[in-house]
Amino acid sequence: MLAELKGLNEECGIFGIWGHPDAAQLTYYGLHSLQHRGQEGTGMVVSDQKRLKGLKGEGLVAEIFTAKAMEEMTGCAAIGHVRYATAGGGGYENVQPLLFNSQTGSLALAHNGNLVNANQLKLQLEGQGSIFQTSSDTEVLAHLIRRGGFSSIKDRVKTALTMLKGAYAFLIMTEDELMVALDPNGMRPLSIAKLGDAYVVASETCAFDVVGAEFVRDVLPGELITINANGIHSEMYSIASNQAMCTMEYVYFSRPDSNIQGINVHTARKAMGKKLALEVPIEADVVTGVPDSSISAAIGYAEQSGIPYEMGLIKNRYVGRTFIQPSQTLREQGVKMKLSPVRGVVEGKRVIMVDDSIVRGTTSRRIVTMLKEAGAKEVHVVISSPPIQNPCFYGIDTSTREELIASKLSPEEIREMIGADSLTFLSVEGMLEAIGKDPREDQCGQCLACFTGKYPTEIYPTELTLETVK
Amino acid sequence: MLAELKGLNEECGIFGIWGHPDAAQLTYYGLHSLQHRGQEGTGMVVSDQKRLKGLKGEGLVAEIFTAKAMEEMTGCAAIGHVRYATAGGGGYENVQPLLFNSQTGSLALAHNGNLVNANQLKLQLEGQGSIFQTSSDTEVLAHLIRRGGFSSIKDRVKTALTMLKGAYAFLIMTEDELMVALDPNGMRPLSIAKLGDAYVVASETCAFDVVGAEFVRDVLPGELITINANGIHSEMYSIASNQAMCTMEYVYFSRPDSNIQGINVHTARKAMGKKLALEVPIEADVVTGVPDSSISAAIGYAEQSGIPYEMGLIKNRYVGRTFIQPSQTLREQGVKMKLSPVRGVVEGKRVIMVDDSIVRGTTSRRIVTMLKEAGAKEVHVVISSPPIQNPCFYGIDTSTREELIASKLSPEEIREMIGADSLTFLSVEGMLEAIGKDPREDQCGQCLACFTGKYPTEIYPTELTLETVK
Amino acid sequence: MLAELKGLNEECGIFGIWGHPDAAQLTYYGLHSLQHRGQEGTGMVVSDQKRLKGLKGEGLVAEIFTAKAMEEMTGCAAIGHVRYATAGGGGYENVQPLLFNSQTGSLALAHNGNLVNANQLKLQLEGQGSIFQTSSDTEVLAHLIRRGGFSSIKDRVKTALTMLKGAYAFLIMTEDELMVALDPNGMRPLSIAKLGDAYVVASETCAFDVVGAEFVRDVLPGELITINANGIHSEMYSIASNQAMCTMEYVYFSRPDSNIQGINVHTARKAMGKKLALEVPIEADVVTGVPDSSISAAIGYAEQSGIPYEMGLIKNRYVGRTFIQPSQTLREQGVKMKLSPVRGVVEGKRVIMVDDSIVRGTTSRRIVTMLKEAGAKEVHVVISSPPIQNPCFYGIDTSTREELIASKLSPEEIREMIGADSLTFLSVEGMLEAIGKDPREDQCGQCLACFTGKYPTEIYPTELTLETVK
Amino acid sequence: MLAELKGLNEECGIFGIWGHPDAAQLTYYGLHSLQHRGQEGTGMVVSDQKRLKGLKGEGLVAEIFTAKAMEEMTGCAAIGHVRYATAGGGGYENVQPLLFNSQTGSLALAHNGNLVNANQLKLQLEGQGSIFQTSSDTEVLAHLIRRGGFSSIKDRVKTALTMLKGAYAFLIMTEDELMVALDPNGMRPLSIAKLGDAYVVASETCAFDVVGAEFVRDVLPGELITINANGIHSEMYSIASNQAMCTMEYVYFSRPDSNIQGINVHTARKAMGKKLALEVPIEADVVTGVPDSSISAAIGYAEQSGIPYEMGLIKNRYVGRTFIQPSQTLREQGVKMKLSPVRGVVEGKRVIMVDDSIVRGTTSRRIVTMLKEAGAKEVHVVISSPPIQNPCFYGIDTSTREELIASKLSPEEIREMIGADSLTFLSVEGMLEAIGKDPREDQCGQCLACFTGKYPTEIYPTELTLETVK
Repeated sequence: MLAELKGLNEECGIFGIWGHPDAAQLTYYGLHSLQHRGQEGTGMVVSDQKRLKGLKGEGLVAEIFTAKAMEEMTGCAAIGHVRYATAGGGGYENVQPLLFNSQTGSLALAHNGNLVNANQLKLQLEGQGSIFQTSSDTEVLAHLIRRGGFSSIKDRVKTALTMLKGAYAFLIMTEDELMVALDPNGMRPLSIAKLGDAYVVASETCAFDVVGAEFVRDVLPGELITINANGIHSEMYSIASNQAMCTMEYVYFSRPDSNIQGINVHTARKAMGKKLALEVPIEADVVTGVPDSSISAAIGYAEQSGIPYEMGLIKNRYVGRTFIQPSQTLREQGVKMKLSPVRGVVEGKRVIMVDDSIVRGTTSRRIVTMLKEAGAKEVHVVISSPPIQNPCFYGIDTSTREELIASKLSPEEIREMIGADSLTFLSVEGMLEAIGKDPREDQCGQCLACFTGKYPTEIYPTELTLETVK
Repeated sequence: MLAELKGLNEECGIFGIWGHPDAAQLTYYGLHSLQHRGQEGTGMVVSDQKRLKGLKGEGLVAEIFTAKAMEEMTGCAAIGHVRYATAGGGGYENVQPLLFNSQTGSLALAHNGNLVNANQLKLQLEGQGSIFQTSSDTEVLAHLIRRGGFSSIKDRVKTALTMLKGAYAFLIMTEDELMVALDPNGMRPLSIAKLGDAYVVASETCAFDVVGAEFVRDVLPGELITINANGIHSEMYSIASNQAMCTMEYVYFSRPDSNIQGINVHTARKAMGKKLALEVPIEADVVTGVPDSSISAAIGYAEQSGIPYEMGLIKNRYVGRTFIQPSQTLREQGVKMKLSPVRGVVEGKRVIMVDDSIVRGTTSRRIVTMLKEAGAKEVHVVISSPPIQNPCFYGIDTSTREELIASKLSPEEIREMIGADSLTFLSVEGMLEAIGKDPREDQCGQCLACFTGKYPTEIYPTELTLETVK
Repeated sequence: MLAELKGLNEECGIFGIWGHPDAAQLTYYGLHSLQHRGQEGTGMVVSDQKRLKGLKGEGLVAEIFTAKAMEEMTGCAAIGHVRYATAGGGGYENVQPLLFNSQTGSLALAHNGNLVNANQLKLQLEGQGSIFQTSSDTEVLAHLIRRGGFSSIKDRVKTALTMLKGAYAFLIMTEDELMVALDPNGMRPLSIAKLGDAYVVASETCAFDVVGAEFVRDVLPGELITINANGIHSEMYSIASNQAMCTMEYVYFSRPDSNIQGINVHTARKAMGKKLALEVPIEADVVTGVPDSSISAAIGYAEQSGIPYEMGLIKNRYVGRTFIQPSQTLREQGVKMKLSPVRGVVEGKRVIMVDDSIVRGTTSRRIVTMLKEAGAKEVHVVISSPPIQNPCFYGIDTSTREELIASKLSPEEIREMIGADSLTFLSVEGMLEAIGKDPREDQCGQCLACFTGKYPTEIYPTELTLETVK
Repeated sequence: MLAELKGLNEECGIFGIWGHPDAAQLTYYGLHSLQHRGQEGTGMVVSDQKRLKGLKGEGLVAEIFTAKAMEEMTGCAAIGHVRYATAGGGGYENVQPLLFNSQTGSLALAHNGNLVNANQLKLQLEGQGSIFQTSSDTEVLAHLIRRGGFSSIKDRVKTALTMLKGAYAFLIMTEDELMVALDPNGMRPLSIAKLGDAYVVASETCAFDVVGAEFVRDVLPGELITINANGIHSEMYSIASNQAMCTMEYVYFSRPDSNIQGINVHTARKAMGKKLALEVPIEADVVTGVPDSSISAAIGYAEQSGIPYEMGLIKNRYVGRTFIQPSQTLREQGVKMKLSPVRGVVEGKRVIMVDDSIVRGTTSRRIVTMLKEAGAKEVHVVISSPPIQNPCFYGIDTSTREELIASKLSPEEIREMIGADSLTFLSVEGMLEAIGKDPREDQCGQCLACFTGKYPTEIYPTELTLETVK
């Protein structure tokens, strides 16, 4: 499953609000609902129209934003960020939003995605004397904006955005303006809502439900939205926009109660499960899913196949960062931590185990072993996405091809490696149909690069190398 | 649902191990798997045959047992405890195991349950000069043992146990002995397993799976098991044993992967859901369950009724103790925290919402409102247990009758109060059959006091009063 | 110097107040001024006439009593304690005041001193069924009081006190009474003051100055003072009182701004320095003192001898508990931490170094070496007390005779061992005269046991043994 | 006294080492000995020749550099910093050393002093697109170096230094070089020493004694020292150097065991006290000093005048950051915290109280009141420096003239305001003679600006304004 990538993944979540007296509080609740997109760090910047004030740290939303610290976060506008991983170099500095002060005004930036030409731009800017404080690609945008000279801030932002390649959803805030920008391929989800007279923007619609805001529409690929005292204003800063939404958002990342492009994520996952049951029928006694991300697909599989859905695996909710990992010896003696099989459910049964994806294969192997040790007669692994054969350069850091088992082994070889009795992947077509898209790939509006190797943007070899060494 | 009782409930979990070089580590993992039974505090005591060493604190297992602190917990035997609530007076002192040192040896105690004559015994002991350090009823046993004079420790324990009334599962450890005792009604689950040559005892069998131990059998009502260098030895210290296992363990408390009296909890809950669908068929579009405890019953209901199961409610995993609660104003504006409805699933649908129980009714009302605001056309509340009309004095602190809505209102009045389109409770017979018991109440081996008012032990009026004021 | 004993020493400080609306706050400031008497732990108990509420922890006054925690400490009476060391078994439990609740009322105890028959009494009480929660000798008093049966609390306290042997200053608080007791030898300082209508009691008078209270008088040996709603009342519970005040209070323990038995401590120390200069004149260029405790004596020596006083040694104020100690290698390379010589002052000079005492000799040797390395031509060590040849059983835990260098070596042998050019001790007579006492030992009113071996109370061999093993 | 300025003062301490395997450890001990120069924050950067690694935080040396964190600080070179105050904007970002990474190498900077044209340079650099991450003036140097284009790092540093005005002692470290620079007026102390083959540089010589290094010489005004694999190399980057050492370093800042320009600080202070006694003889009974900075001068005064030196004021060592300040009411009731008078010493006496300086006068008034309340018959305040009538722009942030009482009131008016019986300031000549300098001001080599208003560098009006508003 994709959770194997913890530590490599740069998927993040952003939230912004303009025009509400409780801006910081609502950002807190919004970020909290996006916590699944990033647990490594979080921050927010609030504007009281006179100045920007930041608060950030390494940890969970509820840890960093203490009641005491929040008291000082007053103002009618705010942007916030939850950060997935320590990629790009860990540490406090890289926690977003980044906040840049100067004697002529301040600028705060929150970013979800990954730029593929960040290192090139950085080299160029450093050659001109710029000093970077973070190893985050996000900082590049700030320097490009500052170099823009005497034109208006909005014009400088537009010019700067045209120099970026890759996937990005940006929130940009000054003392008196909130700007929202999405890359020309619209690779990351970003939607806008209203809460009374205030505007709210978030990576996922679940954040709107949590703060009681009403969904308006998704931000468009290549769109720049500006919100200030004069109201809201939209313009397309790129004419060559061509939607290529990350498909893994449906498969794994997003919360089941979010809608992406109008499609409910739980419903999409359930449909993937149904498609799987139709594509490859399996004889078995029970269907079970790997919690939490694969439960919806498992339910769909069960419903379609008529095989009863059971809770065959339990996730322990209390595994935190301070958890003491079992030693190798203890692990061999059978000590389990995060996931436990339910012996009473799987013993003597032929089990269909639904998971969202296979990356390295090690987790799948561990779960199969676990189920067999708990008495499962057969374990059939069913994956609700196609094999991931290509690295992602847009924020889901599947880093190098070497780590992707599906780029090296055939499905049958993977099956053998993970010890399953059978292994089934969902077809690309089945996956697209499950989310209501046209299965003709070039018209589906989805990014399928990790499955097909066809990247929606240019990829720079120098970046790859630098990416690899970090 | 029973989680409403947080803060009142004394349900706890205990774990013990004898004869393993990694005793403390395994106790850590065992307690971790019992964390759902108590999140307020935890502790363990380890014996290296020469002395007992304790470690405890207020917080989660992973917070209190840091790697550094665990380094000093060496020895081949250990007992541990997770504590649910601050009942009995909060604070560090009341966190168990309680450890008593004297110049002639040490004694550690861990207790799951509630004594109904603790205050009476305490008054009597204080009158004789005893000083109590905690407000926990557990300490009474220590004083009774110490007053036992010159007989052997085992004889003193047996004499002391006969003076206790109520529900208890006790682990008692000295430098060179581990004793395991269950009350004559066997009201709390307690099982024993083997891990190589070592013995393991735990409140729930899920702890055995986590540490890789093999289930042997349940501890019997009125049994005292002694484990020491001479091996394991069992005897019945009470002849009048009469099993009355807490039925709420099946309905709510235990983890789905545990087996109680040989019955898997997930399977029992699913059967309750099926029984409900048979007892009262409802026309609806989707079935959903309140996470996490009611998911199994909801799946059972869906399977039996043929109505599809959907994820209609999402639980936010990151609501911790430091979480800032929304102000009244923000709550009225629609800020939600712990539970979110999945609009894409419930909008325009007739929803069957399965929950485990109704205590005060406030939580049910909140969830019904939430679902309706998210667009549900109808909300039918289906409860996988009978109405709770009587207080529990055995550890599930439903305290006073006044708090129990079902003791004051009829089902129809409750339905109106929570705003549901219909409200269905499972019958006592249906519940017993779902867990494979004889529905004739006096032969079912279950405690049904909270449903029927028939208590398996004497209840002391003075205790009730004292209970109420604390 | 006596600071070498850190970790062994049980010297503590106590503070109590009755009848002031800011009782807890004032106790905070009072304990803060007594912080030099104990840095390991601190606690206070406050009474609002209805119940006692405690707050304690391991750490400094300013760490344990946070603003937030203090908010709940409301009431008009309080007692507090600062604890020196982890002797008697470390840990939270042993931090005082000890607080004992029962169904008929509460009792809080704070103790400065050491009982010499605690283990005997403990064995006896445990034989009768008592359970001790701490390894502190203080708890013995609580059990003795509780065993007192049906008489009044004051009568039970008086009876209990007569069973204790050793050195003690006790504060005993119930919901509606504060009792103050000093042992029949008055071995520990304890004074009483008025602050408006309120009464204040403290180990040292410096605490009165800090809270603005006016000194009334010292508590008498064998006196029991009771303060309650009826006012203050004194009685002698022991007729055989015979003052034997610890002389090391003048030499080392107390703060220079405190008065003991009407004598200012700084003035007493300065007089000791003068006596030394008179007893053994030395030819030298500068006089310096080991900070902080020996500065006063050094100034006295300089004033008497006419040799200029200089700051030859600097103490680093920022050495806290988390300080990383230099490795052996680094120490050999000359890394210094707590104390630095002032090269500019001692280079090429004949230095008289004044210290308060020699216990093991290792610290003296280190300082002499340091001064010589910094260029001192000669180092003459001058000690403002006689050789410590006998262990103390009254709270200054010089534990076993083996640790006391003066019990094994002659002054000349010690001089050689510490590498000094000369070594001078103050005579017993000189010391007594410096504090204004009659040098005839049996009439001086001072305890001189560590110098002379004549103990003012019985000493129990069994206790000594037990003392040694702990 | 100057400690009144806490919160305004930017005085700091720096330490660097090149060529020692325990570089980080020794920096730890060195910074620890400089802790008196700054308690707000501390940091260090270590080089292992391949990359720079930083560690910093807000707090004391012993708090920030934990044993665990230090494990990763490996390398043979390091620079460190202790920071006095939150001036220049508080927060983690401003804690030094500042560390700048780029794709072509890293740069670390530690700075003691204050630039008087920082804001001008910043405006200019921001106009060219630079982004500043801190509000510290130190960052300006980094940007100037980076803008230097293709020349060598040393040439770029030299060019950059010539653009700076004000007081500075800089440590500049790259992966393979350590540079040490002092401003052309040499306003801040900075010395160099050897430790075996390693070089050590520090703000004060006390740091050399602590790590066992041997003093070589002071860094010269306008000197740039470069230490790398080729050894040590010195050059003068400014020809117009003209020493103007901050005189307050002798009076207040430095540790008594440090030598500045070859003069021991304790000795200098004692000489100031003697001068005072000669300039204005006073009839009195005791001399006392305000701890810690005025003790040396008080001893000098006593020695010269023949009036005995006594410990009339005690400083409480345990007042930390978490300390709860007494409320106004409690303060009026006489609660004292940091400083206590010694009643036994001052009661009924004519007291000469020696302090280092008077800034706002409020502290002096408080101490005089305190002594009188403790019974002093007369209090004669004697100040071991001349009246401070002019703001300092070089790091001792006496900010605006309005705060300086001596710029508004005559000595007699100040005397009346602080309630003293007499008030004496040391003359400028007396102060210079006490430190062995030529009293002809333009040849003394000292900065006397705060006393005389003659600033050794240009001062920019725009800076003053900006300074004032921050």
